[in-house]
Amino acid sequence: MKILGLSGSLRAASINSALLRAAVRLAPPGVSISIFDGLGALQLFNPDDEAAPAAAVIRFRQQVAEADALLIASPEYAHGVTGTIKNALDWLVSFEAFAYKPVAVLNASPRAHHADAALRETLRTMAADIVESASLTIPLLGSVSDEEEILNAPPQAALIRQALAVLYEQVIVKRTVTGASFPLR
Amino acid sequence: MKILGLSGSLRAASINSALLRAAVRLAPPGVSISIFDGLGALQLFNPDDEAAPAAAVIRFRQQVAEADALLIASPEYAHGVTGTIKNALDWLVSFEAFAYKPVAVLNASPRAHHADAALRETLRTMAADIVESASLTIPLLGSVSDEEEILNAPPQAALIRQALAVLYEQVIVKRTVTGASFPLR
Repeated sequence: MKILGLSGSLRAASINSALLRAAVRLAPPGVSISIFDGLGALQLFNPDDEAAPAAAVIRFRQQVAEADALLIASPEYAHGVTGTIKNALDWLVSFEAFAYKPVAVLNASPRAHHADAALRETLRTMAADIVESASLTIPLLGSVSDEEEILNAPPQAALIRQALAVLYEQVIVKRTVTGASFPLR
Repeated sequence: MKILGLSGSLRAASINSALLRAAVRLAPPGVSISIFDGLGALQLFNPDDEAAPAAAVIRFRQQVAEADALLIASPEYAHGVTGTIKNALDWLVSFEAFAYKPVAVLNASPRAHHADAALRETLRTMAADIVESASLTIPLLGSVSDEEEILNAPPQAALIRQALAVLYEQVIVKRTVTGASFPLR
């Protein structure tokens, strides 16, 4: 099973990116996670370019299409989603392969409820299959600050393992029920 | 008095951009409105670049600093703000000249309440001075489709005139009360 990770922050020391890198190393057998590295290279969304998007957009869409599930971790900026994650999603609104894609949303900051709620509202509107039981708040901000510290923090690492196990189960169940093959459509 | 218009859509036929172009032509005496043309050229926000931002960001910030007020019109994409407008605001979060800037938010679509509410929440968090009595819903979507039609639609044109008159009054009042000179800080 292939999971594509999307971090809503471009900061090198981003705790959300660190969370995703920790998830890569905590993935259960049978699950491979890759983190998309090109969100910062996407053009700002222009509906006029939908028909002939730039290469960076095509590459992004391709990797989304090939993933069995998405794992999103994104910070809150000024009580809102980041422009970076929303711009990425704007490019997926009309992309058919995104609809019904299983998505888990991890929230590294328990107090950041505005962005988390707005992100889920947008994902629901885009017909994503939000896997709620895998969308956990993982209290990192203020307690751990990088990937190694996350891996060495038992409660946080356990939550990440739990999220991935549930996401895996849900996608497998969905495949079994629908008879679909990976990647799920 | 100088107003800087920001459209959250890069689409050539954007109704929000048309709304701002109509506002330019409906501005009362003493008010000049220019529409910022570079939101689509901004880099995606990266906190690591705050200290030495790219030229496009510097130009944007400069025009914001020189404006006495901002006039924002932005569509709703998938029940959220557009990545384009949020990215622009992300570059202003730590920009001192933005704080206490008078801002009017026009909403061209009465049914698009998610993005309008999220945009205001972010602006409040950024310490913008939202001029509520100038932040009107101007029902355009589905009734008129371009700048000329807006100018020829009496109810809509009247609402735009009203928004601009109120914004002008409020900024003048603020200047009188605080003794500040333009641009207001």
